[in-house]
Amino acid sequence: MIEPALNPESGFSRFKVLVAYDGSKYFGWGKQPDQVTLQGTIEEAITRFIRTPAQTVVAGRTDAGVHATGQVFHVDVPQEFAQDPEHFTYRINQILPDEIRIISTHKAAVNFDARYSAISRRYRYKILDNNQLLMPLQRYDVASWFRPLDIDLMNQASNAMLGKHDFVTFCRYREGATSIRTLLEFTWHRNQEGIVVCDIAADGFGWNMVRNLVGAAVCVGEGRFPQEWMSEILVGRERVADSYVFPAQGLTLTRVDYPADDQLLDRLLAYQEGLKNQAESVVSGLE
Amino acid sequence: MIEPALNPESGFSRFKVLVAYDGSKYFGWGKQPDQVTLQGTIEEAITRFIRTPAQTVVAGRTDAGVHATGQVFHVDVPQEFAQDPEHFTYRINQILPDEIRIISTHKAAVNFDARYSAISRRYRYKILDNNQLLMPLQRYDVASWFRPLDIDLMNQASNAMLGKHDFVTFCRYREGATSIRTLLEFTWHRNQEGIVVCDIAADGFGWNMVRNLVGAAVCVGEGRFPQEWMSEILVGRERVADSYVFPAQGLTLTRVDYPADDQLLDRLLAYQEGLKNQAESVVSGLE
Repeated sequence: MIEPALNPESGFSRFKVLVAYDGSKYFGWGKQPDQVTLQGTIEEAITRFIRTPAQTVVAGRTDAGVHATGQVFHVDVPQEFAQDPEHFTYRINQILPDEIRIISTHKAAVNFDARYSAISRRYRYKILDNNQLLMPLQRYDVASWFRPLDIDLMNQASNAMLGKHDFVTFCRYREGATSIRTLLEFTWHRNQEGIVVCDIAADGFGWNMVRNLVGAAVCVGEGRFPQEWMSEILVGRERVADSYVFPAQGLTLTRVDYPADDQLLDRLLAYQEGLKNQAESVVSGLE
Repeated sequence: MIEPALNPESGFSRFKVLVAYDGSKYFGWGKQPDQVTLQGTIEEAITRFIRTPAQTVVAGRTDAGVHATGQVFHVDVPQEFAQDPEHFTYRINQILPDEIRIISTHKAAVNFDARYSAISRRYRYKILDNNQLLMPLQRYDVASWFRPLDIDLMNQASNAMLGKHDFVTFCRYREGATSIRTLLEFTWHRNQEGIVVCDIAADGFGWNMVRNLVGAAVCVGEGRFPQEWMSEILVGRERVADSYVFPAQGLTLTRVDYPADDQLLDRLLAYQEGLKNQAESVVSGLE
């Protein structure tokens, strides 16, 4: 359901909050009964400060074990707390555990919604290949793979995925969620420490879509399948989700992009003028 | 006490083992009753494999919370387990928790002792300055500082510490331990991520010596004291240990150096020929 834009006379103001977290010990973003989640922990901290039940809306609902360096959420706070976003950052960070840090807080533009306004999400995936020893201090956000990976082959296969496609092949099933997405970036490089790094961006991602695309590219990079195979299974549209899924620990949400403030209203109106179904499908079921 | 070199007829062979660990959850290297220590955990794993009580001797007895990417220890194993060091690495890593990884195992040269043969230890210390937000995934091995640090000033002050001095100013008291050390390297740089990185090496370090030297250099780098101050307190030889000590989490033992195999006997004989006291003092009481 689309959240209504905030009514200026409600007595609340909306904050746009940039947040980073080490997801190792969390059961993902979304609140769940009897589980320690990022949303639950963050809403509890904000509620303590504003003394009013806080509700957050997030750009990317990350799975259990997934990290973030550039996650975005919005939260509506009473006017008395809305005048000093820096103080809000400072106080909430005092309450939050070390695994979660608010990077910055800004007053949100009118019609800003962290989820529905977002035009793209960017993730990073890190793999140490060739059965190299994963150093204990790297293990928090790097996955291991036993075979050596050919970065050039992976880039060629990944490049063919770019553009608007039905990515049903790579999406775990979720009722009502579309798998039609526009992939904006999907590149691989090896960093100074020899770790294989994937950067991937899209308007939105289906459930497990990033980790399945990573796994499929690895199949090409290790020589198990030729590079055309990835395009073939994309076109084939047979759901192979979770055949290739890579572990959550290697995945980090690095960035969410929004349109300029003066385009937020257009984006919201598009939803409200009957494009709701399409809009839903573009933004729901994030990795 | 100096360990005797291994008798070839003992039925045991000596392994030289290179190991890395995330020390966050450990009560330091040295075994202690009722504490989870690195030595205790590693000896337990080896004992399980060789079915004989294992005893390790380590190059640098790291404190609680200190990490390692290049720690070295030796352990004597029965002949039947001594033929395949690679298999030893593989099996011990299967038993050890993820926080500890054996990087490699080699048959030790005759007269090799991980502690007494070592000619230098190298550490790295990482600081995020200027009150910048420490990203949750960095917090495992980086310390925070609120003021901005001037790397050039720190390098000048640190450079004046090089050479053989009585570092009593910077050493926490430990009975029988010398504070006369030869500092081989003490440099600062800012890495690509903006983190201030210190590399420091010596023949050996007194207790808390690295973390006190880091803290003193920070006093210069933040402008609290002029750069000459560090040389003055070194010469003053008044123990200020733990006035400037920086937290353990930022510290990592990165490397231990040994002489060539054909010089190991000379080094051992030097001890045995009555230089024991001096030798003790050079290698004991490591950070």
